[in-house]
Amino acid sequence: MEAKLQELKRLLGEINDLNAAAAVLHWDQTTYMPTGGAAARARQIATLRRLAHEKLTHPAIGKLLDALHSYEECLSYDADEAGLIRIARRDYERAVRVPASFMEKFSNHTATIYEIWTKARPANDFAAVQPYLEKTLDLSRQLADFFPGYEHIIDPLIDFADEGMKASLLRPLLSELRRHLVPMIQTIIAQPVADDSCLQQQFPEAKQWAFGLEVIRRFGYDLERGRQDKSHHPFTTKFSLGDVRITTRVKEDDLSEALFSTMHEAGHALYEQGVRGDLEGTPLAHGVSSGLHESQSRLWENLIGRSRRFWLYFYPRLQEAFPHQLGSVPLDTFYRAVNKVKRSLIRTSADEVTYNLHVIIRFDIELALLEGRLMVRDLPEVWRERYQTDLGMMPSNDRDGVLQDVHWYSGLIGGEFQGYTLGNIMSAQLFETAVGAHPEILQEIEQGEFGTLHNWLKEKIYQHGCKFTPSELIVRAIGAPLSIEPYIRYLKSKYGELYRL
Amino acid sequence: MEAKLQELKRLLGEINDLNAAAAVLHWDQTTYMPTGGAAARARQIATLRRLAHEKLTHPAIGKLLDALHSYEECLSYDADEAGLIRIARRDYERAVRVPASFMEKFSNHTATIYEIWTKARPANDFAAVQPYLEKTLDLSRQLADFFPGYEHIIDPLIDFADEGMKASLLRPLLSELRRHLVPMIQTIIAQPVADDSCLQQQFPEAKQWAFGLEVIRRFGYDLERGRQDKSHHPFTTKFSLGDVRITTRVKEDDLSEALFSTMHEAGHALYEQGVRGDLEGTPLAHGVSSGLHESQSRLWENLIGRSRRFWLYFYPRLQEAFPHQLGSVPLDTFYRAVNKVKRSLIRTSADEVTYNLHVIIRFDIELALLEGRLMVRDLPEVWRERYQTDLGMMPSNDRDGVLQDVHWYSGLIGGEFQGYTLGNIMSAQLFETAVGAHPEILQEIEQGEFGTLHNWLKEKIYQHGCKFTPSELIVRAIGAPLSIEPYIRYLKSKYGELYRL
Repeated sequence: MEAKLQELKRLLGEINDLNAAAAVLHWDQTTYMPTGGAAARARQIATLRRLAHEKLTHPAIGKLLDALHSYEECLSYDADEAGLIRIARRDYERAVRVPASFMEKFSNHTATIYEIWTKARPANDFAAVQPYLEKTLDLSRQLADFFPGYEHIIDPLIDFADEGMKASLLRPLLSELRRHLVPMIQTIIAQPVADDSCLQQQFPEAKQWAFGLEVIRRFGYDLERGRQDKSHHPFTTKFSLGDVRITTRVKEDDLSEALFSTMHEAGHALYEQGVRGDLEGTPLAHGVSSGLHESQSRLWENLIGRSRRFWLYFYPRLQEAFPHQLGSVPLDTFYRAVNKVKRSLIRTSADEVTYNLHVIIRFDIELALLEGRLMVRDLPEVWRERYQTDLGMMPSNDRDGVLQDVHWYSGLIGGEFQGYTLGNIMSAQLFETAVGAHPEILQEIEQGEFGTLHNWLKEKIYQHGCKFTPSELIVRAIGAPLSIEPYIRYLKSKYGELYRL
Repeated sequence: MEAKLQELKRLLGEINDLNAAAAVLHWDQTTYMPTGGAAARARQIATLRRLAHEKLTHPAIGKLLDALHSYEECLSYDADEAGLIRIARRDYERAVRVPASFMEKFSNHTATIYEIWTKARPANDFAAVQPYLEKTLDLSRQLADFFPGYEHIIDPLIDFADEGMKASLLRPLLSELRRHLVPMIQTIIAQPVADDSCLQQQFPEAKQWAFGLEVIRRFGYDLERGRQDKSHHPFTTKFSLGDVRITTRVKEDDLSEALFSTMHEAGHALYEQGVRGDLEGTPLAHGVSSGLHESQSRLWENLIGRSRRFWLYFYPRLQEAFPHQLGSVPLDTFYRAVNKVKRSLIRTSADEVTYNLHVIIRFDIELALLEGRLMVRDLPEVWRERYQTDLGMMPSNDRDGVLQDVHWYSGLIGGEFQGYTLGNIMSAQLFETAVGAHPEILQEIEQGEFGTLHNWLKEKIYQHGCKFTPSELIVRAIGAPLSIEPYIRYLKSKYGELYRL
């Protein structure tokens, strides 16, 4: 049995190496690769991913998993080896249900629609993508149907990213959240907009870079096991537990761009760097879900990085780095600037309060599309109506409307947006629990220290990788299931003070 | 038959993608990887190389090659498809002769001896490596014996790097070369050593970097299909025809370090960038041999980059970049500095004239070791004696003697050193032929233009990749076989003028 387990680990290690290699190639593609390398690079990544998929779906893996079944039953649920077999079986069963021919069709289609979208968006040309988006919808439905027995057709798609989540759980959660947010936003936008002109000055790149690195180093991001580079879209990637990298982009005329994206990606990276070393090379050595991953990026970016306590320590240091730009700007003005709430059309640049409405709109639209209640051709119209209802404004064009997010034009319809709001919800729930257990966390933040919080998160969340399901992890960490109450409390307390709600 | 050829190309493309991925991972390892990534990275590269080797030795390849035999016979020798089948068969037959178990033993051994050497060299401890080097010798012999029928046991090892070369051809070539070099060096070293203190000033890195890039851009290195980064040891690597990268290292107190290594690596890169586009993804899309590759690095670094004509154009520009350091240094002083000849102990920093003696010493020692005429334990002594005889000086320690080169401590004994001197010889032969056909090349160099030379090299050498053997390529390019005469003429003319030989 020991030999079979070793053989399973060896095969999974090989798959892990192929996927890590693909990740390195992708990192290079977006950071340093010369333009001439593009075509070959796309092919090389596709080859690595295909070989990894072939190896994962090889009958040898299925046989080993069958043979290990009785062994697994003798292990405690919490044992690493039990987790390894469990997660390997889940991944194997997911992979073998989807025919290779479908995978190929789907990845060819996404490459095509992505190319068309990159041209259609600047041209404001929804008609150009419409037939391709119809095919995406069709393929998303087909993919879900490889996993029969679902309650709602979106459930299998959500399950890839946020295991255990489903429409019947998310719908009430999100509508309850919306019920709180819409009036909160209406009260806020009736007041004068915060002045964030202090962020829109000239801030030389090198100093922004150094300041951001100093902040995340203090968070606990280990630069001997990571690095930061520039890319068009910030992201986090992992090649091994000893090599978890982030990227950012810098705007010299907007201080908030690099600073908050650096903290955001560092949150993801802290999670990945915090997985226990002995899970290295196994399928357990990764964050468990989109929602829990976002909870960490949001926690470090927003609950920490946009908090007054944080800036009590860091603002004098920021002023030292930029004396001409910020020397005469009071802390309170700066704090209000980085927490400015404003109705807007673009999700990725939305503030903490309005952000979730953008997500909820997309999620509701996905449900309607997958259920067949909404036709792709009617999307732009429904998008505009919904923005008017929820945010009190509507885009004058599709570029800032239904064409804005890359997701539907590079992947599935369904399964990707819910993670952002689940992350926001969990970030508050985890932070509240951590502070409840260790009230000194708040004083530490004021001193630019994050050790107690970081250690708590490592112990409760990071170290486990994906050995437990997201809901198991939350219950173990918090002693209670997912709930939006802490998040609502957080928003009401913070923005109540800022906007006298 | 067409289907079989397509299937062969597909399989070879997959192998190519795996090897390209390993190359990207290696490039990252030496340029940007944080230290924490080291262990996993070594494993990932090993996995990719192993999978590529498994795929190359798969019986499916052998069957396709057998099936394509009659098709190949109908093609002209010069046809790309004939070359593809021919080179694929050579690679396949080489790969299947060596058992996987030997490959694993050998790669474990080289990892071990390399680790020991990195400590033994600074500690000047030959005794620490001796037993491992004996094993390397033993494994090198075993590897050669997988290719029976050789004239000399070194021949199969040479054949991996310089196909068609063998001891019986190299011995007379190198001893003839030595016959010319030893008296030339004796005459030179009897004269005062050139003053190269102008190179040993402070030269800020950014300006060195910009100057080097400008030079190689003018050579014809396409920066949209390549880039330069820093690494501890300069090298060239290729991920596709559209992505051929070089690295260099910069010393702010030594102008010659980055400048000449940049030109050297650019020579390798020009060769790889110059392969015909329709060979992309096939085993033909690479330079043909170690010797021909070195011929290009040496041609661009030495025959161009250390020529007076080159500096007629570039020296005023270099003075502009470094007015304080070089403004009052005459061209002739600078030219003599970059062509200083001096007996020395270290191959990698040797000048053009003495360099080949270092190589010839190693080659003769390899022959003696492989033939059993020399025991590993006697190596340090023989090394010292030979340096005394050939260069008139001997190392006072093994660090600067037998421990200096990484080659024997990270690979085979035999097969790697001859390429450097073959490269020197061919560089002069190719350059003489090009100038004979296009005398305007010399005037162009004085104007900082290299188009005629670059095009000639592309047409005669680069475009073909490895479709032809090295000797076929030389005969096609030059109309005559390999000969040392042009190289001797080149050295006598250049150093005759500098040292009144």
